[in-house]
Amino acid sequence: MEKEKQILQSWAANAGNWIGLIDSEAIESRKLVTNQAIFEAVSAHRPGNVLDLGCGEGWLTRALNARGISTCGVDGSEALIANARAKDGGRYEVATYENIIAGVPLDREPFDGIVLNFALFTRESTEDLLAELRRRLLPGGRLFIQTLHPFNLLAGEQPYESHWKSNSWDGLPGAFTQPHEWYCRTLGDWVSLFARLDYRLLELREPLHPRSGKPVSMIMVLGR
Amino acid sequence: MEKEKQILQSWAANAGNWIGLIDSEAIESRKLVTNQAIFEAVSAHRPGNVLDLGCGEGWLTRALNARGISTCGVDGSEALIANARAKDGGRYEVATYENIIAGVPLDREPFDGIVLNFALFTRESTEDLLAELRRRLLPGGRLFIQTLHPFNLLAGEQPYESHWKSNSWDGLPGAFTQPHEWYCRTLGDWVSLFARLDYRLLELREPLHPRSGKPVSMIMVLGR
Repeated sequence: MEKEKQILQSWAANAGNWIGLIDSEAIESRKLVTNQAIFEAVSAHRPGNVLDLGCGEGWLTRALNARGISTCGVDGSEALIANARAKDGGRYEVATYENIIAGVPLDREPFDGIVLNFALFTRESTEDLLAELRRRLLPGGRLFIQTLHPFNLLAGEQPYESHWKSNSWDGLPGAFTQPHEWYCRTLGDWVSLFARLDYRLLELREPLHPRSGKPVSMIMVLGR
Repeated sequence: MEKEKQILQSWAANAGNWIGLIDSEAIESRKLVTNQAIFEAVSAHRPGNVLDLGCGEGWLTRALNARGISTCGVDGSEALIANARAKDGGRYEVATYENIIAGVPLDREPFDGIVLNFALFTRESTEDLLAELRRRLLPGGRLFIQTLHPFNLLAGEQPYESHWKSNSWDGLPGAFTQPHEWYCRTLGDWVSLFARLDYRLLELREPLHPRSGKPVSMIMVLGR
């Protein structure tokens, strides 16, 4: 649980910076590609009751609710949830992944859609979290995970293998402090993880950058 | 069926060249990485009755039989099957993918393992073939597909999307003639194909080049 504590502390320390970046649409890949991509992936399945887990300051929760998809935003950061609530008064809850793994109930569960948009950072506890989320997903429900495309593990001299990266804030503009580590998986390790947890990989979206024509991220759509 | 005819003609015209390359282990990626990788993937599942489809001159059929895994080699090329039979007198059959899609029975079907080692070249008929193979796979059986890693679609200026490549023999030493086209899929398109056909993607192996540390191919292990 050391990693989880580091992550929560890092987000607590940088909540203001993060809100500033999202409010000003300062992360180009999000603005150009990945925000719309996750919104479309979820909307396409027309869920009626969605959990946006790791919702941060709530932009996706708001976008889905505005589309008529009832969505609850949950995050481990009190500062981010306070900001989300202030923005639209929607349904938001503070709960850490540790809380959820421990069985803390969430509003209106089970869900027919659960979204994790760039919100998985660890190795073992990600597996525990996904196992627990499966129990909170209705039969026929969908889990949506947007994450780094494993293509990114090809860059440089390093061998292609799952590994910890040291700085989650790397490459972002602004004065981020107390970085947390995060775990990058190969494609093969994602597939193995889902097979162990008895998820079915039903769809894999690879949103492309409009200029390069190359994938910016990947979105995995999973069923029970 | 124009593409299939082109493929059969190309293999008929180049059977001698191909046998020479395989016999002399002249394709470096096969010798260094992918032959062993597909052999290990199949062996790890300990099947008892395997179909090696698109077996060519039969090296994998022989290797699996030598490991005690009863394997039948099937290929659409009479010249390649004649060579396979001459090499070890094992169980080999001539059948085209078109024959199999049309329902021609195969020796000792259904199987608990079906292997397609760099043996899928088309778009629509690949889908028809995989649908038909599912019916010839026992419950609990596994389909093994080794193919180009979609990472290869990132090279160059072309956008990342499934497309036809013009020359299947490109990059091989020797005097190959009458090239056939073959269809390369993105990762997302492979996943969609399997979801449509109700295959479960259980494992995805990414065999690495011993020097570069990068994936040379991918092997998808599928269940019904």
